[in-house]
Amino acid sequence: MTPALVTLTTDFGEDGPYVAAMKGVLLGINPAARLVDLSHQIPPQDLLHAAFFLRHALPYFPPGTIHVVVVDPGVGTERAALYVEVAGQRILVPDNGCWTLLEAAGRPDQVIRLTEPAYWRQPVSATFHGRDIFAPVAGHLSLGLDPVRLGEPMAEWVRLTVPQPQVSGGRLMGEVVFIDHFGNLITNLPAERLPPGSLRVRVGPHDVTRRVRTYGEAEAGSVVALVSSSGLLEIAVSQGNAARQLGAAVGTPVAVESGHGGG
Amino acid sequence: MTPALVTLTTDFGEDGPYVAAMKGVLLGINPAARLVDLSHQIPPQDLLHAAFFLRHALPYFPPGTIHVVVVDPGVGTERAALYVEVAGQRILVPDNGCWTLLEAAGRPDQVIRLTEPAYWRQPVSATFHGRDIFAPVAGHLSLGLDPVRLGEPMAEWVRLTVPQPQVSGGRLMGEVVFIDHFGNLITNLPAERLPPGSLRVRVGPHDVTRRVRTYGEAEAGSVVALVSSSGLLEIAVSQGNAARQLGAAVGTPVAVESGHGGG
Amino acid sequence: MTPALVTLTTDFGEDGPYVAAMKGVLLGINPAARLVDLSHQIPPQDLLHAAFFLRHALPYFPPGTIHVVVVDPGVGTERAALYVEVAGQRILVPDNGCWTLLEAAGRPDQVIRLTEPAYWRQPVSATFHGRDIFAPVAGHLSLGLDPVRLGEPMAEWVRLTVPQPQVSGGRLMGEVVFIDHFGNLITNLPAERLPPGSLRVRVGPHDVTRRVRTYGEAEAGSVVALVSSSGLLEIAVSQGNAARQLGAAVGTPVAVESGHGGG
Repeated sequence: MTPALVTLTTDFGEDGPYVAAMKGVLLGINPAARLVDLSHQIPPQDLLHAAFFLRHALPYFPPGTIHVVVVDPGVGTERAALYVEVAGQRILVPDNGCWTLLEAAGRPDQVIRLTEPAYWRQPVSATFHGRDIFAPVAGHLSLGLDPVRLGEPMAEWVRLTVPQPQVSGGRLMGEVVFIDHFGNLITNLPAERLPPGSLRVRVGPHDVTRRVRTYGEAEAGSVVALVSSSGLLEIAVSQGNAARQLGAAVGTPVAVESGHGGG
Repeated sequence: MTPALVTLTTDFGEDGPYVAAMKGVLLGINPAARLVDLSHQIPPQDLLHAAFFLRHALPYFPPGTIHVVVVDPGVGTERAALYVEVAGQRILVPDNGCWTLLEAAGRPDQVIRLTEPAYWRQPVSATFHGRDIFAPVAGHLSLGLDPVRLGEPMAEWVRLTVPQPQVSGGRLMGEVVFIDHFGNLITNLPAERLPPGSLRVRVGPHDVTRRVRTYGEAEAGSVVALVSSSGLLEIAVSQGNAARQLGAAVGTPVAVESGHGGG
Repeated sequence: MTPALVTLTTDFGEDGPYVAAMKGVLLGINPAARLVDLSHQIPPQDLLHAAFFLRHALPYFPPGTIHVVVVDPGVGTERAALYVEVAGQRILVPDNGCWTLLEAAGRPDQVIRLTEPAYWRQPVSATFHGRDIFAPVAGHLSLGLDPVRLGEPMAEWVRLTVPQPQVSGGRLMGEVVFIDHFGNLITNLPAERLPPGSLRVRVGPHDVTRRVRTYGEAEAGSVVALVSSSGLLEIAVSQGNAARQLGAAVGTPVAVESGHGGG
């Protein structure tokens, strides 16, 4: 049998020893575990960023994959540590809501609060549960441990509030929810709610009227609107950086109406 | 038998979900595949950078390794998607020339245009063929799929034009073609074309006259010329950053002549 | 039997082909080796940073793990290349002292100077021993090679001098020795030498008087002193960046005395 896959997602960066320590602890428990780095470049403590990341990455993995997610501004406080089964994936994560966009695919099959210290590294530090709780629990799970042994089922957990699109005066109103490495602006406006044909998109103070199917259809440097690979309205600059060029950030308002012919 | 090795090289960075989605899709098809990250820090859409990277990384891998390369400014346009066998390696890559420096080792054994959608993820998005075409095809190849089933053989493909050294007025003329993480300037001038002994190297407006075998031979902060680990003339600053110190960039002209004794 | 684990730690970054070349060479020798990236973001040539990183990462790995460490300002000079067994780990590393904080756990069991070129890649470049010496030697070790065949035992090696805490005028004096990705300032002052209860910590020109157990106990933006996950005094800003906010760097002096009641 192929040894279990365990993915790692953190905001720890790679310059310090934190990610390496987690890998060491996990492999110390299950030397055969197969580690897959997803990202250690989640912006520090940015739960909305983490939520978007997980929503658009985890569903592609084979069912039963174990995902360790440590973006944890509340480490060492009373916030719970969770084991979650949702959308076929198994997630170890602080109870801060960053996994809850995956609930869109249905209620989680199981949410367990990690309370059984037998599966933790001792002593547990106050500031690094990635190394002391999440990594060792992942190691034990990857060896086949039944998750019911990790703690008690929970019925309530923190949910992330994400901005929802609104309609106002015939315009679809939303905002930028994610900016990728290329500076593309991903909005919370789903493709199926966009008017067909040409669009007029207002991004902060800027108007975008060119709608394309893909970046390369427009000459370099031009600002375009398109449907992103995640099915959301995206504003991009062909071979450029829309965030920089338009001065946009997460939270920048975006309004969409039908264009007036042309396009 | 050891499961297949699949390497990943992209310009996606690690803050967004794109690399993670590709890994998920690939492992969803072949959970036993062994993923090796080469780089996700190719500068956005920089094909020359990608070409140099691949030329100096891929030949070291065991024959038959599958390499997924996604630096793809033309995604979703008419540009082809390719399977290439060259120099013993197997490469999945957009038809943009970034793999063609590897042809220096001989013509490719096989170039196939990916046209068989049975091996793709459906629906195929217009902007993310890494997830929807290259990763799933790599998954199937890693399970042993015969590449002839992926599409039709091609006889022509895009080749990257790279600047070639010139001789003019007794001087060897070239340019900076790559700048590494340390700020070392790698040129297109091969070691075997350099005059023996002392050199006078002009880098933009700067003269470099100190030739060394390795960085540590010079005191910290001094500018030196040496033969890089890739066999090319390199300009470096001992324990410093030559790109920053000399204000040089890819494309900065470099001219070499024999030094006048001394050294 | 599970194939050998080989970890990689370098200051090479990921934009250039150096890490990828090392992985290729290693897998070329042992295609079954299981590679684990620890970091390629050690700041260029920063041996103190590398030393802290290794001290707080390597001990968590299963005994016998092979660690390739290439932070190597002296590459190509007379500095030795080493195989070290210490604290149950096996390390391939230039003789520059960056592994010697691990000696705190006891004398190394074995230190061998790599002198046997049969296990190297030929020809050996003057500037890239990661690819030409350390990676191929790691490949052979991972196949079970007895390390005594790599070269001659050594009795002396370079040790890194790290600043030690001092006591002066009733105050415990130390300095910042590491700054992590979050801007947390890790000092060289061990928890067991701190006064109990409230503290007055001077960090450069700043006074820190709030002692907490974990970041989340303080309101966002406040400066706190706590015991780090590595057991050292740490200065942090809750949900902020202490290095930036206090203008502190590695080497910034830190002095600790008992607080005067309150807290």
